Amino acid sequence: MINPFDDTYFMKKALQEAELAYEKGEIPVGAIIVVKDRVIARTHNLTELLNDVTAHAEMQAITSAANFLGGKYLLNCTLYVTLEPCQMCAGALYWSQISKVVYGASDVQRGFNTMGTQLHPKTEVVGGVLAEEASALMKRFFIEKRNLN
Amino acid sequence: MINPFDDTYFMKKALQEAELAYEKGEIPVGAIIVVKDRVIARTHNLTELLNDVTAHAEMQAITSAANFLGGKYLLNCTLYVTLEPCQMCAGALYWSQISKVVYGASDVQRGFNTMGTQLHPKTEVVGGVLAEEASALMKRFFIEKRNLN
Repeated sequence: MINPFDDTYFMKKALQEAELAYEKGEIPVGAIIVVKDRVIARTHNLTELLNDVTAHAEMQAITSAANFLGGKYLLNCTLYVTLEPCQMCAGALYWSQISKVVYGASDVQRGFNTMGTQLHPKTEVVGGVLAEEASALMKRFFIEKRNLN
Repeated sequence: MINPFDDTYFMKKALQEAELAYEKGEIPVGAIIVVKDRVIARTHNLTELLNDVTAHAEMQAITSAANFLGGKYLLNCTLYVTLEPCQMCAGALYWSQISKVVYGASDVQRGFNTMGTQLHPKTEVVGGVLAEEASALMKRFFIEKRNLN
């Protein structure tokens, strides 16, 4: 039997969040957190709107999911995020002991792989899910931003 | 003329915040952010109370200072924090482009130096200010916690 709830299914929901960020003029990154095929957090980047460098989609998702669960450790949780997490977000994911992280596009400049940030040994990582879609949205954002300035 | 507003002066204020965390049963880390000898943020670790791994003193201080300044970049700001920042907090400080980071005790296990997290090239770093006081408070906390369990 085909399982409709695969990584692509949930990454599409993270991409919808990235589109909401895009519409607000934010760097378009979206995230969701899932437990047992249930979405418990939906967030997108709000650094401009909140004037806060810590307001990345992943950071909000971690806070939101912990609030939903009533505990700070995100055991049995999977984060779907459209862009590879940065040092800050990977550091937060480390503390959360999250079970799985799935990201879309790679961030070769500021992503945790390039920066050498450590995730928790318990955390499984999958990259490249709907990477082209996430990347295309980022490119559209930066091209439009450049043309406006 | 002696300047009363030196790093030790401000670190004492960060230590006062760490003591507030201690009284709440939180790992006792405190932080303040200063602009032109004026304290614009005072925070302490609240990860237990908020059930949120992202509620480190530094993260709250960055959000609070940016809110006060009305902008997300912490130019001309100095963070005083009683413990060496972790990957997450160093990653957030990177994005903030903060001018100076002063920390007390080193965290040889989880500190950004050991973990290899990059701060912004603009950021000056000073470690070891009132390190013994900060370290003694941490030790007291963990000894008491062990005895309670």
